Amino acid sequence: MIRVAVLGAGRIGRIHGRNAAVHPAARLVAVADPHVPSAESLAQSTGAEIASLEDVVERSDIDAILVCTPTTTHADLIERGARAGKAVFCEKPVDLSSERIERCLGVVERAGTPLMIGFNRRFDPNFASLRERLAGGEVGDVELVTILSRDPGPPPVSYIETSGGLYRDMMIHDFDMARFLLLGDEPVEVHAVGSCLVDPDIGRAGDVDTAAVLLKTAAGRIVQISCSRRATYGYDQRIEVHGSKGMIRAGNIHRTTVEVANAAGIAADPVQDFFLERYADAYRAELTAFLDAVSGGARPEPTGRDGLLAQLLADAATESARSGTPIRL
Amino acid sequence: MIRVAVLGAGRIGRIHGRNAAVHPAARLVAVADPHVPSAESLAQSTGAEIASLEDVVERSDIDAILVCTPTTTHADLIERGARAGKAVFCEKPVDLSSERIERCLGVVERAGTPLMIGFNRRFDPNFASLRERLAGGEVGDVELVTILSRDPGPPPVSYIETSGGLYRDMMIHDFDMARFLLLGDEPVEVHAVGSCLVDPDIGRAGDVDTAAVLLKTAAGRIVQISCSRRATYGYDQRIEVHGSKGMIRAGNIHRTTVEVANAAGIAADPVQDFFLERYADAYRAELTAFLDAVSGGARPEPTGRDGLLAQLLADAATESARSGTPIRL
Amino acid sequence: MIRVAVLGAGRIGRIHGRNAAVHPAARLVAVADPHVPSAESLAQSTGAEIASLEDVVERSDIDAILVCTPTTTHADLIERGARAGKAVFCEKPVDLSSERIERCLGVVERAGTPLMIGFNRRFDPNFASLRERLAGGEVGDVELVTILSRDPGPPPVSYIETSGGLYRDMMIHDFDMARFLLLGDEPVEVHAVGSCLVDPDIGRAGDVDTAAVLLKTAAGRIVQISCSRRATYGYDQRIEVHGSKGMIRAGNIHRTTVEVANAAGIAADPVQDFFLERYADAYRAELTAFLDAVSGGARPEPTGRDGLLAQLLADAATESARSGTPIRL
Amino acid sequence: MIRVAVLGAGRIGRIHGRNAAVHPAARLVAVADPHVPSAESLAQSTGAEIASLEDVVERSDIDAILVCTPTTTHADLIERGARAGKAVFCEKPVDLSSERIERCLGVVERAGTPLMIGFNRRFDPNFASLRERLAGGEVGDVELVTILSRDPGPPPVSYIETSGGLYRDMMIHDFDMARFLLLGDEPVEVHAVGSCLVDPDIGRAGDVDTAAVLLKTAAGRIVQISCSRRATYGYDQRIEVHGSKGMIRAGNIHRTTVEVANAAGIAADPVQDFFLERYADAYRAELTAFLDAVSGGARPEPTGRDGLLAQLLADAATESARSGTPIRL
Repeated sequence: MIRVAVLGAGRIGRIHGRNAAVHPAARLVAVADPHVPSAESLAQSTGAEIASLEDVVERSDIDAILVCTPTTTHADLIERGARAGKAVFCEKPVDLSSERIERCLGVVERAGTPLMIGFNRRFDPNFASLRERLAGGEVGDVELVTILSRDPGPPPVSYIETSGGLYRDMMIHDFDMARFLLLGDEPVEVHAVGSCLVDPDIGRAGDVDTAAVLLKTAAGRIVQISCSRRATYGYDQRIEVHGSKGMIRAGNIHRTTVEVANAAGIAADPVQDFFLERYADAYRAELTAFLDAVSGGARPEPTGRDGLLAQLLADAATESARSGTPIRL
Repeated sequence: MIRVAVLGAGRIGRIHGRNAAVHPAARLVAVADPHVPSAESLAQSTGAEIASLEDVVERSDIDAILVCTPTTTHADLIERGARAGKAVFCEKPVDLSSERIERCLGVVERAGTPLMIGFNRRFDPNFASLRERLAGGEVGDVELVTILSRDPGPPPVSYIETSGGLYRDMMIHDFDMARFLLLGDEPVEVHAVGSCLVDPDIGRAGDVDTAAVLLKTAAGRIVQISCSRRATYGYDQRIEVHGSKGMIRAGNIHRTTVEVANAAGIAADPVQDFFLERYADAYRAELTAFLDAVSGGARPEPTGRDGLLAQLLADAATESARSGTPIRL
Repeated sequence: MIRVAVLGAGRIGRIHGRNAAVHPAARLVAVADPHVPSAESLAQSTGAEIASLEDVVERSDIDAILVCTPTTTHADLIERGARAGKAVFCEKPVDLSSERIERCLGVVERAGTPLMIGFNRRFDPNFASLRERLAGGEVGDVELVTILSRDPGPPPVSYIETSGGLYRDMMIHDFDMARFLLLGDEPVEVHAVGSCLVDPDIGRAGDVDTAAVLLKTAAGRIVQISCSRRATYGYDQRIEVHGSKGMIRAGNIHRTTVEVANAAGIAADPVQDFFLERYADAYRAELTAFLDAVSGGARPEPTGRDGLLAQLLADAATESARSGTPIRL
Repeated sequence: MIRVAVLGAGRIGRIHGRNAAVHPAARLVAVADPHVPSAESLAQSTGAEIASLEDVVERSDIDAILVCTPTTTHADLIERGARAGKAVFCEKPVDLSSERIERCLGVVERAGTPLMIGFNRRFDPNFASLRERLAGGEVGDVELVTILSRDPGPPPVSYIETSGGLYRDMMIHDFDMARFLLLGDEPVEVHAVGSCLVDPDIGRAGDVDTAAVLLKTAAGRIVQISCSRRATYGYDQRIEVHGSKGMIRAGNIHRTTVEVANAAGIAADPVQDFFLERYADAYRAELTAFLDAVSGGARPEPTGRDGLLAQLLADAATESARSGTPIRL
């Protein structure tokens, strides 16, 4: 039984906290959040105790910490957890600065403790099945990967201002997914095109809300990624991969299987429109993967290095969009 | 080159006449229709000459006749054509009376001439492919066949009054399709339930507009058929067959492949809504099958006996719906 | 907080017991099962205590009982629970004998206590949404209802021998669904056709494994139901309803959204193949509906009378298949 | 009745020639092809006479010419036809050199005669419907356009060597489609990435077989195009457009509507795999649009300028892929 503490009791902390509380291989021991009502609410509903962030990373009766605090605190908490010998699961990103990420990973490496980064989409049953079949050679050699992500709606401009920009805040998931699907053939060139088409305030904040990226890998494979802060029919999350022997894709989940046909046509329900619903299974599977690795002594994946490499792609895309030229890695 | 005449230049006669006129294996020699403007129009557009019905069935320079006249004239024209040594293609049904059909088939048998009945749906590329794969054992032994037919809208009540009723006029296609898909295992029991739900005038004319039938075959296979005189999203024509190893189905053809997604859902176009459009390919393939059989000396299918057996099922369904009990054949 | 006991800790008892244990409006107080290891296992995993069936229906600290024991004990436990003033949720059927059901419902009526029958499919989010839209008039007046149910595979013949037969054991769910979708227009005629096509041992046990039924309602609406003990691509559960203004349907849930395209075609995953997975959401929603009704003082639905009426339809279908004639109700 | 001659009786010339021969508004007068057997075969099957290219562009009894000869002859034949006062329909491209195209268009402009370029995909009923609904505002302001084209298989390397390369030979259709869908907002930046993943001989011939392009328009809209010389499940031709109010897409046409379900999943047929079949309706609609414009005195579209602008995008993509930098237009 792995003794777990969750750091941060916001939206994503509550997900991981509750999943840990009912997980057969874990016991949620403590909840830490400087915002007391959040900590109390999660502690109460899970039977965990309330603790301070400081305590949690030090206490010897805690084996693993789930870092769900704001991004600016991630690297520091990872380092403190690692130094205290704890297994760390950290929501993406480790930090908005690649240099800071590299330093942090150095600390973890020296500590020799497990670190897993929360790229939850790898654990979506649909995407995981797609990747498994891809890795099994079902469509032959990969030639072209297309990834599409559209958020239901833009976050507040105040969030965007400190988010690192669309490529680091949103498309980083797609960069990790691209790497996940490329099975080791790393991107060597990034070209990004971005626009502000959804909300002019996002543009005034220096960011884009609609963007597309072309990646080329060492072996010449091509990846197309597109992102938008606006979806019109639900949270849109799709992957399509063409290989030498076929195509494989994974799509959205409709709210129900109901279809209505009349003179206007034949209509299905919109797709699920909230990431916590769309990825509920993924969050559970992600936690299980972390706990399995910790209890089995294996290195959990996605690793800190996966977090770094996705961040470097996001940095390159940001620079490409700024300069108007492709960036070689 | 088979010299063909078309008898009847109405809606379906024009289809067969034009298909014959451009068919590489046929020459449309003559068009006969007592309604002169119809005959003239089709003759003009195809380069055929106008002739009387009497002439056409006698003339020695005509090899094959396509009978597209009103139902009441079918049996007589088939007999005259057969006696004159001509190959005959006749639109369904041969007659509304099974006794009359049997007499007619006796005449054809004695003449030894080819006769094909126009159950066009057997030649629809989708249904033909389904049947071929079924016959090839792709879903194992057939257990349950479901056939659905919904016309875009009811015909005039004046038509319904002389149509023989829904089971003989409309569901006869589905009875033939059921026999086509059962690969020789004939229905031995028919139970029909009908209602008047679309237009009360149809009920006043003594007919139903919504009906469902259960067939049981000699080997215990089950067939569900449903028909309605009303479709709401296009001409609805579907088949689904469950077998011991799987299920096979064939569906409708949408007007386009366009789909629109928005907050209301994801909508495809309605399906094609007119039988001449839906079955355009089927009519062409049907004529080719007839001409191929005639030129190759083979017996064309569906045969006159297929026409009779479908009619007997329609008779039984009509009687079952009237009496409220299943009819054994 | 409603204090709940679960009677029967088998497959379905474990589902309801666990759902009750984590339900915010309920507390699972006790588990009763004469098979001690089953009771212990469920009690342990939920924190409930073990009790005898006798105790549970008597104890004043229990508000509601969930009857998940074998069918032969249902009516008796319902009566004892009702007499003890408890709200009762009972898995279908109340009994295989309609007379016994009627007597039992009389006892409950005199007790004035809530009784809900476990027709779980009404609570499937897809079917529930379909029904809600139907009731809202989205497809106009209902004309034709088609329900299809195919189990993944036949149960042991020993089970079939005491099951009451396919119509009472399996198709009873579809009879209830038909009534649910007909919005008050009750079936007045039942015609059933059954065959033994899957396993001859089922035939030797006096039952069928493949069956279809035609229902006609008081208003002339038509219902087609088909059932098979064998599914080939997952647990097949579909509904299609045609109305005067359109068609509405609800279908299966695929294991993933992955599709693979190659020279053989474009293939989706099979559908979910186990009822506990397919209806996991339905079981949760069903319990919530029961608890909501109990706490709100409302009469829970489906009622005991719904259980009786579905049973009468199953009885009529059994008799129709035996006699070869439709049964009027 | 427009008197038409077809120049070039190869694969595409036969399509246009036969369509013209049966078109109610046209008469196919002459067929010209230096390869005599080709000319004879098409002339025979359509009833047209054989003529020389020189004659055809001069003869006063010909109103319109359909230029279906090899690319190198297009510009010259367009100019000669225009000078002789004839309406000209010319297969894409006018020429592989943009300068040559511009000179040719100057000649046509001075002649004041109609010229239409054969971007057939604009006339595909699916894509045409998509564009019409887009123009009608059904999905609001366009934000992101994704176009995918995959040929069934690569042409011979000898063809590729003189084709102008994938961007000019194949992706030019997609550039035109992008412009068609952007409703006047022209691309101002082109970034192309290409690889040789299908056949190394294509690489040795200096071309790519897999490519993706990012376009950005004056208004900041983004277009993703991907092309491959290899398709694995039929000729793959898809469009997806996201706008402020929704998404609209048009997809492939399956060979039949048949689906088979079994333990392996649920499989549809592959999509139609030959462009002449996939675009048969488009070729007919394209000819009708040309003849309608000619007889109505309107300027046919796509215009010569559309041909030039697509070529300039193809030139820019070719240059971008070569240099590794985006090209501004």
